[in-house]
Amino acid sequence: MPVVNGRVLFNSIPEGFPVPGESTVYDASQTIDLENVPLNGGFLIKTLELSIDPYMRSRMRSAEIKSYTPPFTLGEPLNGYGIGVVIRSENPEVKAGDHVYGMLEHVNYVIRKDLASSGLQVIKDNHGLPWSTFIGVLGMPGKTAFMAWKEYSQAKKGETVFVSTGAGPVGSLVIQLAKLDGLKVIGSAGSEEKVQFMKEIGADVAFNYKTTNTKEVLAKEGPIDIFWDNVGGETLEAALEAANVNARFIECGMISGYNNPAAAAVRNLFHVVAKSISMHGFIVSRLHAKYDDEFYKTLPPLVASGKIKHREDVWNGLESVGDVMLAVQKGTNKAKAVVHVADE
Amino acid sequence: MPVVNGRVLFNSIPEGFPVPGESTVYDASQTIDLENVPLNGGFLIKTLELSIDPYMRSRMRSAEIKSYTPPFTLGEPLNGYGIGVVIRSENPEVKAGDHVYGMLEHVNYVIRKDLASSGLQVIKDNHGLPWSTFIGVLGMPGKTAFMAWKEYSQAKKGETVFVSTGAGPVGSLVIQLAKLDGLKVIGSAGSEEKVQFMKEIGADVAFNYKTTNTKEVLAKEGPIDIFWDNVGGETLEAALEAANVNARFIECGMISGYNNPAAAAVRNLFHVVAKSISMHGFIVSRLHAKYDDEFYKTLPPLVASGKIKHREDVWNGLESVGDVMLAVQKGTNKAKAVVHVADE
Repeated sequence: MPVVNGRVLFNSIPEGFPVPGESTVYDASQTIDLENVPLNGGFLIKTLELSIDPYMRSRMRSAEIKSYTPPFTLGEPLNGYGIGVVIRSENPEVKAGDHVYGMLEHVNYVIRKDLASSGLQVIKDNHGLPWSTFIGVLGMPGKTAFMAWKEYSQAKKGETVFVSTGAGPVGSLVIQLAKLDGLKVIGSAGSEEKVQFMKEIGADVAFNYKTTNTKEVLAKEGPIDIFWDNVGGETLEAALEAANVNARFIECGMISGYNNPAAAAVRNLFHVVAKSISMHGFIVSRLHAKYDDEFYKTLPPLVASGKIKHREDVWNGLESVGDVMLAVQKGTNKAKAVVHVADE
Repeated sequence: MPVVNGRVLFNSIPEGFPVPGESTVYDASQTIDLENVPLNGGFLIKTLELSIDPYMRSRMRSAEIKSYTPPFTLGEPLNGYGIGVVIRSENPEVKAGDHVYGMLEHVNYVIRKDLASSGLQVIKDNHGLPWSTFIGVLGMPGKTAFMAWKEYSQAKKGETVFVSTGAGPVGSLVIQLAKLDGLKVIGSAGSEEKVQFMKEIGADVAFNYKTTNTKEVLAKEGPIDIFWDNVGGETLEAALEAANVNARFIECGMISGYNNPAAAAVRNLFHVVAKSISMHGFIVSRLHAKYDDEFYKTLPPLVASGKIKHREDVWNGLESVGDVMLAVQKGTNKAKAVVHVADE
């Protein structure tokens, strides 16, 4: 008995912000027969949760432009980090009822051949956490914060860190990791509600960059030894100006320029030379091999016990993906953006 | 019998390029009695050679602006790396005839208390090299190239490095160290004569950035794994565009912006994130403790045997300092700029 296999298709390349219903469209024209569809030795996954993240904007580009992640293909479904449950399997690696984490198409159902070639891993929930947790604080954003902090921060007790987008899924974990390491934490975000959240999770100084001047805050509360950069542009300029000698800049993202290239210019890079600053760009997937075990050992119990706090902003159904993509680019989401696609 | 103790004074803060006779002035109003001047337990140095380097422009600033090197003081002599010979000493650390290397005032004669507090070190010439060598390929520029290459390049045989200002005292040594490590070397400089020199010292690709488009050369000869940046601005943008994944950028200087802040903007820093690039600003003095012994062991024999080539552009007398400062900023010097102050 076929059911609808809904899909979110990449429909056109946006100029600035992605436009729901235009850049991406929801399509319900395909069906799938869950009991009888041939698996050819693979397994059938039902999508449960999908993660919508800022970096996805960079994939909405012309296929000719090279970057670290492949572009989305026009007319094909989007894909991104997600959690699914296996509902049928002909592959001994996984069995029905297993949960898989990794890159999933934005569709209701998908067939995969094996774990390795599809970049999926089986994950177990040993602490009674909701599955959405495993695409947020225990998924890519959490890994991004945890692994890059371990690899690049060289954090020393008593140092000062400035975390941009400190209320977001990555930044909020960075704030908490920095506090665990004994640092003074300055966090910035774009609303009073986000400022409140940064204070709740331990930021010593939290401010709204839309109403408070970043340079002035850093001049008063700095110098900074570590900058967690999710923004680039003017915020990066302010951090360069306020940086201490030997500061470490962890370059996680530069969202200021994603939808407005003119905002990306940085005019005071000479501080990199003058202050012996190290800037580390990174892609978290390249740090997985080194830190994945430590991550899954360390973080789930901290989250389950409430020692590490996190928040989710949950939308329902594949139909919402376009709106969520836009919200994440504009920063109007209230917390880690999750699309709850289906119950188990 | 007093003699003139000539001095080069910092006279006014330049807006753009330093102006000889205005930004700096030569002053012959002071005298010194070499036999009888009281040493108070210290020692008297006669200045032999002074090094004029690009970074000195950044010291010609208002005392209120903080940076990694102290500003010059208006009305006081400039200072910089130099070689002197001790002509009298009351300090058992040094004796008459010893040669000292370190920061020396731009004066004919100066009295210092001890080595440590004045940041000087006694150097020996075991290979019959001219003393000027010890402020060039065996001085700060040589240490800059050698130590930062060791510390940051992570050079692997078969990789490609792009060296900006590759005919200069730092860049030309970087080119030769990279060839010794088995890399493909692309070098840029600002004249045909400099291009010729880069070829002589082994650059695989050498071009004149004034007549050849840097982006085009790098698109053809890259991608680059290492960028030795002495320039910043557009050159840095071109290197970011041509960088390989995991590229290392060694940020030695950003001369494009020293005299023209508008030229310093970099608009495509997102590549740092997208390509996992590491950028390392550094100040060579912070690497001395780790590499000084290795440097003085390794490099002098290579220079003496001609395996490492270097060039000097020698001016005579303290009176020439202003002209040399300008030449170094404009890049019209032909090689490592040296002011020969006096014979021994």
